[in-house]
Amino acid sequence: MASFPFDISANDGAARTGVLSTPRGEIRTPAFMPVGTAGTVKALYTDQVKQAGADIILGNTYHLMLRPGAERVQRLGGLHAFSKWSGPMLTDSGGFQVWSLSQLRKMDADGVTFRSHIDGSEHRLTPARSIEIQADLLGADISMQLDECTDYPCSHEEAERSMKLSLDWGERSLDAFGSRDTQTLFGIVQGSNYPDLRAASAQAVAAQGFGGIAIGGLAVGEGHDQMCRTIDMTVPHLPSDRPRYVMGVGKPIDLVEAVARGIDMFDCVLPTRAGRHGQAWTWDGPINLKNARFAEDLSPLDEAVPCLASQEYSKAYLHHLIRSGEYLGSMVLSWHNTAFFQALMQRMRDAIASATFETLRADLSARWAHTKSAPKDVVKN
Amino acid sequence: MASFPFDISANDGAARTGVLSTPRGEIRTPAFMPVGTAGTVKALYTDQVKQAGADIILGNTYHLMLRPGAERVQRLGGLHAFSKWSGPMLTDSGGFQVWSLSQLRKMDADGVTFRSHIDGSEHRLTPARSIEIQADLLGADISMQLDECTDYPCSHEEAERSMKLSLDWGERSLDAFGSRDTQTLFGIVQGSNYPDLRAASAQAVAAQGFGGIAIGGLAVGEGHDQMCRTIDMTVPHLPSDRPRYVMGVGKPIDLVEAVARGIDMFDCVLPTRAGRHGQAWTWDGPINLKNARFAEDLSPLDEAVPCLASQEYSKAYLHHLIRSGEYLGSMVLSWHNTAFFQALMQRMRDAIASATFETLRADLSARWAHTKSAPKDVVKN
Repeated sequence: MASFPFDISANDGAARTGVLSTPRGEIRTPAFMPVGTAGTVKALYTDQVKQAGADIILGNTYHLMLRPGAERVQRLGGLHAFSKWSGPMLTDSGGFQVWSLSQLRKMDADGVTFRSHIDGSEHRLTPARSIEIQADLLGADISMQLDECTDYPCSHEEAERSMKLSLDWGERSLDAFGSRDTQTLFGIVQGSNYPDLRAASAQAVAAQGFGGIAIGGLAVGEGHDQMCRTIDMTVPHLPSDRPRYVMGVGKPIDLVEAVARGIDMFDCVLPTRAGRHGQAWTWDGPINLKNARFAEDLSPLDEAVPCLASQEYSKAYLHHLIRSGEYLGSMVLSWHNTAFFQALMQRMRDAIASATFETLRADLSARWAHTKSAPKDVVKN
Repeated sequence: MASFPFDISANDGAARTGVLSTPRGEIRTPAFMPVGTAGTVKALYTDQVKQAGADIILGNTYHLMLRPGAERVQRLGGLHAFSKWSGPMLTDSGGFQVWSLSQLRKMDADGVTFRSHIDGSEHRLTPARSIEIQADLLGADISMQLDECTDYPCSHEEAERSMKLSLDWGERSLDAFGSRDTQTLFGIVQGSNYPDLRAASAQAVAAQGFGGIAIGGLAVGEGHDQMCRTIDMTVPHLPSDRPRYVMGVGKPIDLVEAVARGIDMFDCVLPTRAGRHGQAWTWDGPINLKNARFAEDLSPLDEAVPCLASQEYSKAYLHHLIRSGEYLGSMVLSWHNTAFFQALMQRMRDAIASATFETLRADLSARWAHTKSAPKDVVKN
């Protein structure tokens, strides 16, 4: 298996910035990956995603294996060609959505059998099948091992059993992945909120030799503060020369605090989901364009974000579009939020490179303190 | 009132091509106006509408007066600035949607009182109020007189009463419009299917001195053949030096046959409405991308239409997007259809200019014969 070259150009405290080089292009880290759930970052053209500053997007194995089907995507030339995204792409393993969306799932030691939330049809995912779907059929540049997601909260006994199962599946995933020149595979640390389990999991996953390591089991209702604690208890056990990825995270405040703790990669549906519901993220926190106070506000969303969506549409017009249920309202707000998240990542990369990250962090953490998720404030992907 | 300069550069049979010059730009005729119902051509960016080849778009007085409100649009700088369309814009009078959408409408000799389909609030439109909304508050380049739409079919007695009311309202509209340098007003011919009433209406409207004349009361369920007959009985009574506009029309076959009869302007929601429902119009007629036969069809919608939507998205991908209810499916198909209708208009303009219109008409009418609307196949705007 190829570990993509990861060049860390600057450290600032625990935060670091660099470039992960893939055959399909460079990924500037810390990186936020827009989520293209079913082969499309919802309500955006791929050109807009690229121009917003995204180097890599994420595709969902669960959604794509159900519709249009992984074998069909392969026959159509793979997910890059199918969805017109030529840059790097990461796919998840499907495990999280099996846990969050599917019906009648049955776990066993070898995998999980479940029914589609779309049509009730029965499907099965194993570590090897997930790798086949991601790497062989969809053609992901970065695949994720299949892991098990436990409910939150979760007993120590259950968390330990599950963590060990995920470790075993990691090994099976590596075996299935084998040796590849142009693709890589990331492992996933589990262990719920338990420091001993997170440490054991991180050390074991680090020893397995993945091209990168994700911290799983976050964004499941634990809240901002617990998320930070879990990252704190995990990162010291991860190798520093591999990218670290926190899955399903998150709000801007989460990104800032996770970067401060040495995380390199993120994904979340928040920018596009919030956009479809009329919410725009700004340097002062989120605003909802449905609110009557924007009805005659001619100011743009944010002139400092280098994106037409942020600069050229008045809040009054967006208020009208969202109130009227017009597609364009969702389109522009999803586009703006996508660009805003990328602008945030760029500010963090620049601050780390110039050794001013703590100043930026203090500013943003103060601005966004009110947005910290309380426990059980779940965003399902 | 300014009659915008209308330079007819070529005639081919009854068909003609030219340029209607407005202070906000030139309109190449025959022209198809995409409909921006509530201040947005649904699911399109204005740049896409422009690049698709549209010189002018239409805004709906009924929708805009209810939400966000005409006075509010004025305070926000007028409809052009509000909706980011800097080219020419035509607004309808609101009369058609009062007839087709509103609740509890009560007609009287001076206007119509109705309840909003959105919130049940009561509103009133008179000829003068419609002009105020269109020309003063929204800032339309071309306003339409308020007219009455009769049900279809309709007795001769009722059609005559209604036609005379519309004539009276045309006079009141002209009085309210007064003398303007940079805006113009179109009158509307009514008379249902009755040749004597259409002739009388056309002659009277022609004598009133409008900047252009619309044939109203079409696209209300009369079907393709009756639409052609109504145009045939009306056009001979219209001045040749003013633009002729058929409102709410239509399918490509309707456009071809109406252009053949000397019509210069059209509007219809069909391109975007069809697109949202998975339908793409092509030179071979409409196709529905939901159909299973497109699931692995890698061909684009139409390489000959100069638009990214038509050239760069595979039918297989669009099939997947539409089946999955993804915004991007509706976005790309609405964009393609908008470009296809503009490409059709360009082909007709070119054919008229080169005196080959009858050849094009014969080809397209044969291709699209199966798409002719039967009576009562109504598209409400």
